[in-house]
Amino acid sequence: MIPQFASTANPALAAQLDSAIDNKTKPLGSLGMLEQLAKQIGLIQNTVAPAIDRPAILVFAADHGIVAEGVSAYPQDVTWQMVENFLAGGAAINVFAAQAGCHLQVIDAGVNHEFGQRSALIDRKLANGTANFAKAPAMSPDLCAAALEAGMALAAAVPGNVVGFGEMGIGNTTAAAALMHKLSGIPVALCVGAGTGLSADGVAHKQRVIEDAVALHAGVDAPLAVLATFGGLEIAMMAGAMLQGAAMRKVLLIDGFIVTSALLVASRLQPAILDYCVFAHCSAESGHQRLLEALGVQPLLQLDLRLGEGTGSALALPLLLAAVNFLAHMATFDSARVSEKKG
Amino acid sequence: MIPQFASTANPALAAQLDSAIDNKTKPLGSLGMLEQLAKQIGLIQNTVAPAIDRPAILVFAADHGIVAEGVSAYPQDVTWQMVENFLAGGAAINVFAAQAGCHLQVIDAGVNHEFGQRSALIDRKLANGTANFAKAPAMSPDLCAAALEAGMALAAAVPGNVVGFGEMGIGNTTAAAALMHKLSGIPVALCVGAGTGLSADGVAHKQRVIEDAVALHAGVDAPLAVLATFGGLEIAMMAGAMLQGAAMRKVLLIDGFIVTSALLVASRLQPAILDYCVFAHCSAESGHQRLLEALGVQPLLQLDLRLGEGTGSALALPLLLAAVNFLAHMATFDSARVSEKKG
Repeated sequence: MIPQFASTANPALAAQLDSAIDNKTKPLGSLGMLEQLAKQIGLIQNTVAPAIDRPAILVFAADHGIVAEGVSAYPQDVTWQMVENFLAGGAAINVFAAQAGCHLQVIDAGVNHEFGQRSALIDRKLANGTANFAKAPAMSPDLCAAALEAGMALAAAVPGNVVGFGEMGIGNTTAAAALMHKLSGIPVALCVGAGTGLSADGVAHKQRVIEDAVALHAGVDAPLAVLATFGGLEIAMMAGAMLQGAAMRKVLLIDGFIVTSALLVASRLQPAILDYCVFAHCSAESGHQRLLEALGVQPLLQLDLRLGEGTGSALALPLLLAAVNFLAHMATFDSARVSEKKG
Repeated sequence: MIPQFASTANPALAAQLDSAIDNKTKPLGSLGMLEQLAKQIGLIQNTVAPAIDRPAILVFAADHGIVAEGVSAYPQDVTWQMVENFLAGGAAINVFAAQAGCHLQVIDAGVNHEFGQRSALIDRKLANGTANFAKAPAMSPDLCAAALEAGMALAAAVPGNVVGFGEMGIGNTTAAAALMHKLSGIPVALCVGAGTGLSADGVAHKQRVIEDAVALHAGVDAPLAVLATFGGLEIAMMAGAMLQGAAMRKVLLIDGFIVTSALLVASRLQPAILDYCVFAHCSAESGHQRLLEALGVQPLLQLDLRLGEGTGSALALPLLLAAVNFLAHMATFDSARVSEKKG
C-alpha cells in the first residue's frame, strides 16, 4: 500500500550538478542555499537541467474532535468558514498562490460541514472530522488508510512537478503536537504552542490534554497506528500525497508545523522521502523549529509566519524558481570570458 | 546639498494600518514580518493602500585602488568583465531581476575600463576607480561630492516607487569594512571577511591593510570625510541615491554588505533614512550580520548569499509584493463572515 521509492542519491549526477553550479559567473558557493536547492531539485528530477513545471499547492481541510477539550482559540466553525474564504479567493493563500503563479487546490478531507456541490472544492470528505482522541482514537485504521489512499490519488493527479502543501483545521496544532511527541520522543511541553492564539493558560491546558491522551493510548507506537490515533484526516491525506509525490519524483514543498507533522509520519514510513522535501519556512509556532531540527533539515524562510494554509509554501516558491533559473540561465566563466579566482 | 526628509512616523496612519492588517482573515500577527513590512511600506507611501510600482534595481560598478594591496581573491579585471556579463544578461542579477519582473539599471560609477558607447550601460564614470586608500584618500572631497550628486540624480529619475541597490567592484568589501569600522566603532577584525573567497591568511592581511590605513588617516571622522577617504565611487553614488530616494518617499531595498555600508554612511548624514529601508537579506560575508545589528534592523532573508550585484534585493522583492498584496486583496473577518477569536 505505501509507495516505495529510493533516495535521490546519485554521485555521478551530483558531481555534474556541482560542476555546473561552480562554473557559473559568481564566487564559489556565493549563492548559498540556492545552490543546494538547485542541486537537490536536479537530483530529484534526475537531470542537470531541473525546471519547475506547473507548481500546485494542495490545501487539505478537516475538523478535529479534540476541539471538544477546549484546545483552540477559535471555534470549530472557522474551519468551514475559511474553506469558504478559500473558495471565494479571500484568504492569504489565495493572494500568495496567485502572486506566485501557482495553481491552488482546496480539498475537503473531512470538514464538519455540508458544502453542497461546489465546483472549486475537491470533495474527499471521509467523515465529519475525527473523533476526540482524548476519549478514543481519532480515526479507525480503515479510515486512516482511506485518507492515505485519497491523498496518494490526489498527488498522482497533479500535472506538474512541484507539490506544495497547506492545511486548515481548527485544533490541528494539537494533533500535530501529539504526533510530534509520539514519533520523535520530544517532550509534549516542547511540542505544544499557542496555535491560532492561545493564552499561556490555554497552552498549559493543551499540553495536559495531550499528555492525558498519550497515557490513555499507551502502547500505540507504530507510525500508522500513531497517525490513526492522534492525527487528522487532512494530516493523513497529506502524508499519503507526500509519499505518492516522492514516488513520482516530484518536489514536495513543506509548509509549517502541521504539514511538517504529516511529513514526519511519512518519513517514519519511508525515510528517503526527506530527499524530496524542500522546507519552505520555520514557523513561529513553538515546536516547529524543534521538529525541523529533529528532522535535520533547514528551512528557506524565517518570517515568523504562523498561519498555515500553505502560505509559506507559496512564499518560498520564487526561491525554487531562482534556484533552477540561475542554473539554466547564468553564463559560465568561459562563456562570459570572466577571469577566475587567482592562485 | 544632502536631501532633507523626515521620519515616516505617523501615529494616526499607523493605527489605521494596524487595524486594516488585524481585520484580515488570519490569526492576529500570523503573517509575522510581512505585517510589519506592509505597515512600513504604508507609512513610507503615506497611505493605507500601499502598492509596488515599477520596481528597479540599480547596480553600481566601480574599481578600487586598494586592490593594489592584494586584498581580493579575484583580479581587478573581473569588475569590467562582470559589467559586460550584466550587459549580456548572463549574471545572477539578470536572472533574478527578470524573474521578479524588476527593471535593471547598470551604472558605470568608475570602472577602470573603457566600455565605449553602450546603450544598456549608464555612464557616470567619474574616474577610473579610486586611489589606493592605503597611501592616500580614495577620493578627493570634490570627487566624492560629485559621486553623491550623480547618485541623487539617478534616484530622482527612477520612475517607480521601489529602488533596489546592488554593486560590483573587486576590492569593495575592503572599502565597506573600513567604512563600517570608522562609522560604527566595531573593531576591524569583526568587520572584515573573505569577500569573494580569501583564505584565512588573506583575511588577516586584509585586516592589517585596513588597520594601517585607519592609522594613516587618523582624525578623519566626519561621515563625508570617512566616505571620501575609505569609500568607493559606487558606494558614494549609492549613498546619494539612497538619500534622494528617501526624500522622494521611495522604498529603499538594501542588499548585502557593501550596499549596507553605503546606507550606514547615509544614515550618519540622515538617521531618518532607516524608516525607508527594507533589508533584503543577511549576507554570509562576515561583518554584515554585525552591521545589521549595529543598525538595529532585521533582514527578510537568510540564505547564506554573498554575491552582491543586488541579488538579495531581487530575491526579496516578492516578499514586498506579498506584503502589499495581502493588505490589498485579503478578505476581512466581516466581509468573509469568518468568526473571530473566542472570549
